[in-house]
Amino acid sequence: MGLKFRPTDTTFYDLFSEAAQHLVGGAELLAEMLSETADHQDVARRMREAEHQADETTHAIVRRVNTTFVTPFDREDIYNLASGIDDVMDMMDEVVDLILLYEVKILPAELSTQVEVIQRCAEITAAAMPNLRSMQSLEEYWIEINRLENVGDKNHRRMLAHLFSGEYKAMEVLKLKDIVESLEGAIDAFEKVANIVEQIAVKES
Amino acid sequence: MGLKFRPTDTTFYDLFSEAAQHLVGGAELLAEMLSETADHQDVARRMREAEHQADETTHAIVRRVNTTFVTPFDREDIYNLASGIDDVMDMMDEVVDLILLYEVKILPAELSTQVEVIQRCAEITAAAMPNLRSMQSLEEYWIEINRLENVGDKNHRRMLAHLFSGEYKAMEVLKLKDIVESLEGAIDAFEKVANIVEQIAVKES
Amino acid sequence: MGLKFRPTDTTFYDLFSEAAQHLVGGAELLAEMLSETADHQDVARRMREAEHQADETTHAIVRRVNTTFVTPFDREDIYNLASGIDDVMDMMDEVVDLILLYEVKILPAELSTQVEVIQRCAEITAAAMPNLRSMQSLEEYWIEINRLENVGDKNHRRMLAHLFSGEYKAMEVLKLKDIVESLEGAIDAFEKVANIVEQIAVKES
Repeated sequence: MGLKFRPTDTTFYDLFSEAAQHLVGGAELLAEMLSETADHQDVARRMREAEHQADETTHAIVRRVNTTFVTPFDREDIYNLASGIDDVMDMMDEVVDLILLYEVKILPAELSTQVEVIQRCAEITAAAMPNLRSMQSLEEYWIEINRLENVGDKNHRRMLAHLFSGEYKAMEVLKLKDIVESLEGAIDAFEKVANIVEQIAVKES
Repeated sequence: MGLKFRPTDTTFYDLFSEAAQHLVGGAELLAEMLSETADHQDVARRMREAEHQADETTHAIVRRVNTTFVTPFDREDIYNLASGIDDVMDMMDEVVDLILLYEVKILPAELSTQVEVIQRCAEITAAAMPNLRSMQSLEEYWIEINRLENVGDKNHRRMLAHLFSGEYKAMEVLKLKDIVESLEGAIDAFEKVANIVEQIAVKES
Repeated sequence: MGLKFRPTDTTFYDLFSEAAQHLVGGAELLAEMLSETADHQDVARRMREAEHQADETTHAIVRRVNTTFVTPFDREDIYNLASGIDDVMDMMDEVVDLILLYEVKILPAELSTQVEVIQRCAEITAAAMPNLRSMQSLEEYWIEINRLENVGDKNHRRMLAHLFSGEYKAMEVLKLKDIVESLEGAIDAFEKVANIVEQIAVKES
């Protein structure tokens, strides 16, 4: 391996922190969408804006990878991490979009529990990004994400069982199942981000 | 980068043009399947044949990659492009297959609008392939595909909203949702092909 | 290519045989889950255990790849093969899990035909793994897997047509469709494993 030259250019770390910060904002909008008094049209519009801003950050990272000679870690890892974070945002946007599109008026209370898991994932992901520079405390982050993913999986199975318990009509099940699955998709996407961070940390150690 | 030796062997360009031409044929069969008087069994049989022929072209490309010493661009890019085009055909085949399998008699008129987008995607993809040789005019192609993908996405959301509007029974929604999602899958597959072409063009420029 | 040093360390071959053996056990549990007198809770518990054991084998392979200097074939291929086998187990686990979760009491008889295909896939995959060492008789294995995948595909389409024939209520269709699709997912996952083995054999030949 030899000595590793760690560039002083901190832009990549800043951009990843910015990208993960968009996820915190997205998770908040998701929680807002689920509140009983939410103006679905308005929240969806703001989510779309947030998603565009997140796209901007992703593009800034990709542009920088393509124009920078020395990158703090493998180009491919940078690209994977950026698109992994982007995927989370897309999944959260999809949940909001489905609630609007399907005109779901009454959402089962369990959805909120799942969105709380998502908010927690967003917070610790955002808190972990600045640590990419020192490569410190990342292990706690991915262990916690894995724990949250397990909690999310249990919630997910409980929601599905409830959906199919006979309480809901087929049409409602059809709508809610898509929403429930997108929520799980968002949590899985957070786990993928943590896995990418883990791989980067293993390589750099 | 240094000088790049561009082989005079034009077989790859011809094969990609042939592959994309299969997509034009596939999109026509898709449109035929949606017409009110279509013989579903017969169109599905012809689609299956078209899909086999497209497979042949894909295999011809892969065989050639494996046996040619100098390829016009990276082997992996050639492989990605070939399998990307193949994926489009598979998605169009899936739509036809689902209509046959689910015995859907009455298809919402909006499906035709979406198939028109697919036909347009197929045409411009086929028109772009010969330009891989000169690497000219490719930007217009992928900008147009991205525009069509946006149009397709709007159609898709409108169709889903209609499906869940209460007009359809749950059983019909179940069937049509699969078909509507496969149509969107075909458009997404076209966008992936355009992204691969873009990556190739960026590398070669 | 030059001479290839084939290490005498047989651990990798043993681990892959062990991994594929878990699939045979998983397929048996799947068959048991479908029997009329099955105790769903109990079979699902045993499936979860089997899945954990399979995970252990996968991790043992990954650990060994990371700590061994000379591997019998490319590290990436070893990793792909291990995770390919793992994916099969996950799909079989998912089927069992869905039957439990959706509380499906009466399963269409055709599901058993599909599970027989899966059992056969598991058996020949397990039988093929020890042949990775000599690279003999692998072609018969992947040809047979491809044949089984075709049989499975026909079964799958027949089951879907039956599901949508009008005999089942939308709610039942919703449940059974997920199960039917997971069964197909398991067969597809077996095919992916066979493709990875084929790629390895081609490289080594």
